[in-house]
Amino acid sequence: MTRSAHYVGDRTFVVEDTEPVPPGPGQVRIDVAYTGICGTDLHIAHGAMDHRVRVPAVIGHEMSGRIAEVGPDVEGLRVGEPVTVMPLDWCGECPACRGGNAHICHRLTFVGIDSTGSMQRSWTVPAKIVVPLPEGLPLDHAALIEPTAVAVHDVRRSRLTAGEHAVVIGAGPVGLLIGKVAQTTGAAVTVLELDPHRRAVAAELGLPTVDPAAEDVAGYVQEWTAGAGAEVVFEVSGSAAGVRTATDLLAVRGRLVVVAIHPVPREVDLHRVFWRELELVGVRVYQHDDYVEAIRLVRDGLVPAGRLISRVVPLEDAASAFRALEAGGDVKVLVDCGGVA
Amino acid sequence: MTRSAHYVGDRTFVVEDTEPVPPGPGQVRIDVAYTGICGTDLHIAHGAMDHRVRVPAVIGHEMSGRIAEVGPDVEGLRVGEPVTVMPLDWCGECPACRGGNAHICHRLTFVGIDSTGSMQRSWTVPAKIVVPLPEGLPLDHAALIEPTAVAVHDVRRSRLTAGEHAVVIGAGPVGLLIGKVAQTTGAAVTVLELDPHRRAVAAELGLPTVDPAAEDVAGYVQEWTAGAGAEVVFEVSGSAAGVRTATDLLAVRGRLVVVAIHPVPREVDLHRVFWRELELVGVRVYQHDDYVEAIRLVRDGLVPAGRLISRVVPLEDAASAFRALEAGGDVKVLVDCGGVA
Repeated sequence: MTRSAHYVGDRTFVVEDTEPVPPGPGQVRIDVAYTGICGTDLHIAHGAMDHRVRVPAVIGHEMSGRIAEVGPDVEGLRVGEPVTVMPLDWCGECPACRGGNAHICHRLTFVGIDSTGSMQRSWTVPAKIVVPLPEGLPLDHAALIEPTAVAVHDVRRSRLTAGEHAVVIGAGPVGLLIGKVAQTTGAAVTVLELDPHRRAVAAELGLPTVDPAAEDVAGYVQEWTAGAGAEVVFEVSGSAAGVRTATDLLAVRGRLVVVAIHPVPREVDLHRVFWRELELVGVRVYQHDDYVEAIRLVRDGLVPAGRLISRVVPLEDAASAFRALEAGGDVKVLVDCGGVA
Repeated sequence: MTRSAHYVGDRTFVVEDTEPVPPGPGQVRIDVAYTGICGTDLHIAHGAMDHRVRVPAVIGHEMSGRIAEVGPDVEGLRVGEPVTVMPLDWCGECPACRGGNAHICHRLTFVGIDSTGSMQRSWTVPAKIVVPLPEGLPLDHAALIEPTAVAVHDVRRSRLTAGEHAVVIGAGPVGLLIGKVAQTTGAAVTVLELDPHRRAVAAELGLPTVDPAAEDVAGYVQEWTAGAGAEVVFEVSGSAAGVRTATDLLAVRGRLVVVAIHPVPREVDLHRVFWRELELVGVRVYQHDDYVEAIRLVRDGLVPAGRLISRVVPLEDAASAFRALEAGGDVKVLVDCGGVA
């Protein structure tokens, strides 16, 4: 038997024994070590995505584990190997896939939202979404490869380079990861964050912070950049104010990377976009190269994954992970799924 | 004596004799053939830029003429040579100038708005803004080099290439020029325009048009692009609706070039920007290479400048050029400044 945490609606999870699913052709079964919880998982738990998630649902996609069983017609994966997943499934036929952008497939399926996720001890998935990990990478750190790949993708799309200045608006887990990945390019980074606890976490990670409620941010960035403005701003707050601040802070030909998901249209200062020839850059998930780079950064400690993990809860108590995130104060909460001793 | 049209406020122009200004060191005096009127000139005539333009003012910057006199310390220009101007003056010292983007200089002066323009028979300017023209290029066509350079800059910033699809929203003079320049890349172009007369002009120029009030534009573009969406949209309408339409029409990784000046912030569908990894690209005036390309395109007839000129009025009657543009129905109106027989 295995055990699974099932979201059944309205912040409620039921943990129960289930039968492991034997891997079919092209599939593998993974013993799951850890599953991290992201903002989307929290939205799901709040019922905000009940139109998309069919309950009872096992959710979760930030994970690590070891291959437990390999199905027929699978090559290149062996039992015992440490792995994570890139939880995307694309059609291969739409204009986006044919154009080399399968990660934005018109019919993209997100594993763990649109299909069964990893918040269970034993998880059977298509082998094609599995990403092998180097031995020696702690599996709790490895559960942060997926959000790190998000940050790598966002920084890559920003074209940030050494000597430039990047402002990160919002110091949640993704903002912190973007800040650390941005630093690896050789750029200088400043994080804007209203919450004093989050600012303290950022500072502990070596990210300079500014409180936009207490400081004149535009003046700060002017001085920091010798009057030029920031070459790159990452909008990770999801707020209307964040978008407004972003265009104000950018240098001539600066790039605003829209990381947060804004569910409603936002007012954008298109006059400033014209006046400084700004760019806005949309970003969505990641591509394979982003995983390669994320694994390197976590393995080499350039992204201090371990220091972002603020709490680990057992699978039996998965609901408490969501409650902790709601309460604030945590950065990254992992569920120990119990599949790897 | 020479003659000049002076804007004196509230749609009023006074034409009077003035003394020609002898060119000082680094200056040349130009006998002005034609001055075209652009949307900004019309704004000025309406009083909308009285905070910036000091009356009485000679305005105008889309021009052609011949060198009449060369001041001291000027090299490479000779009397009689046909010329236009790139009407920008930059400081050379600010972060934008030092970064190679002098056309977005933090202290940019726009000649013909911030300083005396070309709506006069004899015009004395810094030699550094003068751009020599090939002999044989008709001087009325040459008055359209400046707006063509705008279009070249916008198309260059869009990275439009052969085989792609571009939608131009708005068929004013700049929209038409962008459409024609876009076609020279080998891309397919469709122009959206509400006004039937402007649609007819676009069609005569070989630009396929769609009436967004009569047709389902999104459906049209879906079919036109085999479900992919347009790789590039140029927003030249300046309207909130144009911005909304633009994001709806774009393909995965499509580029929205914000050409029109939007004086107020606009709602932008940032969810769509995320979902399709769209880019918004700000554009402002032009750079030297854009002039080189604009001259080539007009000289070779790839941009049919002559067919865009719908009216030529004498300098004495400069005010009538503005009235004609206000009334609608004209594309490009030139003032014959009388400096070249």
